[in-house]
Formats: sequence, structure tokens, C-alpha cells
Amino acid sequence: VHARPESDSLEIIARVLDQSPVDDAVGIGDDAAVIGPELSNGERVVVSTDTLVDGVHFGRAYCSLQDIGWKALVSSLSDLAAMGARPIGATVALTGAMRDDLTDLYEGLRFASRTSACPIVGGDLSSGDQLTITVTVIGQAPNPVVRSGAREGHVVAVTGPLGGSNAGLRLLLDDPLADDRVARRHRRPPIRLVHGALLASVGVSAMIDVSDGLFCDADRLASASGVGLRLDTVPVQDGATLADACTGGEDYELLFTCDRPVFAAIGDLFEGRGLDIPTIVGECTDDASQRDIDGKPFRVAFPDGLGYQHRLG
Amino acid sequence: VHARPESDSLEIIARVLDQSPVDDAVGIGDDAAVIGPELSNGERVVVSTDTLVDGVHFGRAYCSLQDIGWKALVSSLSDLAAMGARPIGATVALTGAMRDDLTDLYEGLRFASRTSACPIVGGDLSSGDQLTITVTVIGQAPNPVVRSGAREGHVVAVTGPLGGSNAGLRLLLDDPLADDRVARRHRRPPIRLVHGALLASVGVSAMIDVSDGLFCDADRLASASGVGLRLDTVPVQDGATLADACTGGEDYELLFTCDRPVFAAIGDLFEGRGLDIPTIVGECTDDASQRDIDGKPFRVAFPDGLGYQHRLG
Repeated sequence: VHARPESDSLEIIARVLDQSPVDDAVGIGDDAAVIGPELSNGERVVVSTDTLVDGVHFGRAYCSLQDIGWKALVSSLSDLAAMGARPIGATVALTGAMRDDLTDLYEGLRFASRTSACPIVGGDLSSGDQLTITVTVIGQAPNPVVRSGAREGHVVAVTGPLGGSNAGLRLLLDDPLADDRVARRHRRPPIRLVHGALLASVGVSAMIDVSDGLFCDADRLASASGVGLRLDTVPVQDGATLADACTGGEDYELLFTCDRPVFAAIGDLFEGRGLDIPTIVGECTDDASQRDIDGKPFRVAFPDGLGYQHRLG
Repeated sequence: VHARPESDSLEIIARVLDQSPVDDAVGIGDDAAVIGPELSNGERVVVSTDTLVDGVHFGRAYCSLQDIGWKALVSSLSDLAAMGARPIGATVALTGAMRDDLTDLYEGLRFASRTSACPIVGGDLSSGDQLTITVTVIGQAPNPVVRSGAREGHVVAVTGPLGGSNAGLRLLLDDPLADDRVARRHRRPPIRLVHGALLASVGVSAMIDVSDGLFCDADRLASASGVGLRLDTVPVQDGATLADACTGGEDYELLFTCDRPVFAAIGDLFEGRGLDIPTIVGECTDDASQRDIDGKPFRVAFPDGLGYQHRLG
């Protein structure tokens, strides 16, 4: 629908590997893949991998090493959450870390590991010029939720207000010592594994994590499902703008679709668990090319940014 | 037993994560980890991750992008082979690749993927200053073979002659276009998955892949098992030296231990499959501190190199 720096590259890879770049749940271009035979409890194994690079995905000036360790694990876990999976374990491949950095980095990783009950089971250490962390998480899911199940008339909802991370980044670039709510939101994004598992258990039709911005990730989900999007009420985190919420990245909330009776059940379920009830942001339409917010195409509403994409090469 | 640049760092990580660095089969410091519940066929899930960095693990002057793709997957698969595991799938996290490099890199990955029946199921693309590839492989194993099962009197054996990769590297550094057997051996190391699965099926007591050199990897196995090593007949690849074979890296043969009746069974089994019969290189002793070759300590026999370790930081 709109140009993304990465999509060309994904198409090259998919062509070489003879795979479809939009193949759901398995394949290059999706966040998590379902692999192998079933587990003895009938669940499926899912895997996802994510890399953070110094100067590209984080800045040492405004993120502590502990923050970076936390974010590295959380950004991968977010992909499991979007499948409705629980983590089994993670590997950490660390390149270009100084020995003196290891303790703080791994304290951040350990804190995320314990918070998510995801043991770090292995890894690799390499020298290199640029601090680079690749985390691969393996999980199990009774019914992995894919991106392609959204249908006309389903509501589109998110698990929490958006834009905080981008607003926090803006603040931190101005004042690296900023420590208010949005700054913390950028440095320590949330882990939505519990939310994802609950949403999968009630049968949401499609789900994705909001890592590259609402517009970008909603578009991915809609494209995989072959539906249009009509958004209206986007919840904006205090301290952020609507543009942050629509086009900023790294919020790590979950975006999902379901029919209205299921959404009502989700409200009861989340309320019963003491979790914030998700917010409906719009609905799926039958015009697969439609990507509207408040009656205007995404690109007209916010021409400056349509997703938080890191440029390759 | 002898200093390794990485071991300090692994100890820091293990301490922060509250894990033992020599914890077998699961944990930092091992090549592959057994994770999660059993599969429905009773097998276990194993995972391993490995990073190649430009200028550290390979040189663009003498390795083609296809070679690099091949090596990236093969070096991770080698850890699965050493557990007696079959691959289920792999993820590829690629940092710092130019778009024009993707086709060749992924052709190398695809070739290794097809050769090993290991589908590439996902990944991540990031910009960065240095070409860095992290491959994580997930596999399944009926009985994962760990490093710690070697006992006094067990033979120590390898699946093929050693040193070819290091000799090839030396040749390629001198002549980047060299294309003889050892040069090819360096650029396209073998995949020993079939060997590893067969060895696991007959009940070898311990196994490791020879990625950092015979002395280094044999020491790791012996240390994990609490046995000594007395080596004598090290098979040297044509074109390589005994020093290459003992201290060079990246041969990706398998080193294993077993009792003599099992070794006889392995001979029959491998012969029946048309595979080269492994070579006994020595035996395990009751003196846990012993690391001898031809009656001399490793460090006396080859004082210049005790394993092919990439320096951190």
C-alpha cells in the first residue's frame, strides 16, 4: 500500500528461498513462525528473532545497558505475545560488547527473563565494531494466532494507548536524563505475553504487535487478511501526540481483530483479571485497499511518517 | 585448564544469570540447549545460535557471499549435529548487508538449508556498519547427547581428518582465489547431521563439534565429563599440518567418546551406510587434569595455539 524500506529486501529473500513473503505464520516476512511437530501437550512450537543495533535501534546516550538488555528480549517476546504463545527459552547472540558492558547488559536481560518466565538458555559472544544483540525466542502456543484471519466487520482493537515510546524517544534525544512516564515507556517497553495468551484463548481472528507503528502494523495485518481498515478512535498515551500514536514505533502493545461478541467476552475476561480493557480503534472493511483514519487515507492524515522502519544497507 | 579469551566473559554472564557456565545441555557455555516439554513423538527440542562477523569470522576478500551464507547456517547446524539432533527450522538475523548482497548470501543459505533439510522460517534485517549474521537453529533429538558423559577408558574419536579448514584459511589469505581441497574445506565446511544422528543412535557417551580446534573442544568435553585425555593418532587432512589439526578451527567434524564395543558397532554402521569410519584419536583417563598428546601436555606440544577463539571487546 505504501513503500516500506524493508519490503524490497524481503521480496529478494523470499524469491531466493522460494517462499512467499506474506506466507502467514511460517516464512520470511512474518514475526514468528510455527515450526516442527506438535508438542506432547498438543501445542505448537513457535520461534521469532529480533536484532537491536547500536545507533540504529537504540542510542547509548539515552538508553542504559540494562535498558538495552531489557528491550532486546522484550522486542522478541512481543512477537510471541502476538501469536498467543508462552516462551520456552531464548538465545542471546551478542556482538561488539565490551567485557565491562556484560554485567549491565545481562542484568537487563535477566530482569526481562524473570519477568516473562523465559529462561536464557544459550548464546554466542563475538567481537565486532558495533554493539548488536540478536535475541531468538522459542515458545509454545495451543492455537497460534496469525495475521491473516481478520474479516469484514471485525473490530480492530489495541491493548493500550499508543505513541508513548516515540514521544519518549523525542524527549530523550533532547534530554538523555529525562525520566518521566513516556521516557520510561521508551526505555522499558511492556511485555504483553499475558494479554496475548488471553486474547488467543478467546479466539481473536488476527493479531500483531505494534512495533513499527499503528499504521504500519495495522496495514500488515489487513494486507495479510485481505481486508480494508477504517480507524477512528486511536488511544494516545499521555504526553504523546496522535502522530506518535499512529506512526511512532516500539509501543509493543498488541493489535488484534475479532467479532463483537468476542470483544465483549474479552472485556469481561480482562476486567476479571484486573487488566486494562482493550480499546476499539476501528473496524475491518470489505475494500481491501482502504486504509483510512477519520475518513482520510493514512498517508493523507500523516504524510510525514507511515511507520518506524529501519533502513537496510 | 588453559586460558580462553571467552571464558571470563562466559563466567560474567553465568554469574549474572545465576547459571553454571558448564551446566550441560542447558545453559550458557554449551553449544546447544535442550528446552521445553517433549514433542509428541517423545523427542526433545534443542536450540543453538551462532554469529559470523565480517573481519572476525570471515573475510570478504577470500569468501564469497554464498560461502558466507553456507557457513552461517552450517556452523549452527554443527551444534545440532553434536547433540544428535535433526533440524526443524532456522532463523537468520542479518545486520549490515547491502541490498545487492542479499541474493548471493541467501543463495548460500538456501543451499545449506536444502542440503540439511532445515527450512529457513524467519529472520530479521537491520542496517549496521559491519556484516553480521546470526543463525539460530531449532532441532529435535530422541536422546540429546551431552558433553559430560565421557568416562575413563572410553575411546575418543573424530568423524574425519582435521586441520583442513585452517590450512585452507592460510592458503586463502595468501591467494584469495585458491580453490584446492583445503581452500574449499574452509569456504564450505561439511554438515555432519547424518553422522551425529547415527552416533547418538548407538549411544556414544559424549559428543561435541570441532569448531574451535581439537585441543580446545576436546578440553571442553573432558572438562564437562571430569576425565583426562591422552591423545595419540590425530588424523590430519591432506595439505594440513598436525598443528592445524590440533589447534585450527572450523573443521566442523564431530568429536565423541564411547566404549570399545560401541566403537566397533559404529564401524559396522558407518561402513554399511557408505560413510567414512571415524578415527580413534586417543582415550579418556582417570586424571581429570591430564591433556596430553603423544605423552606431552597440549600446551607443550603446540605452545602457539590452543584453540581458535575470537576475542571479545
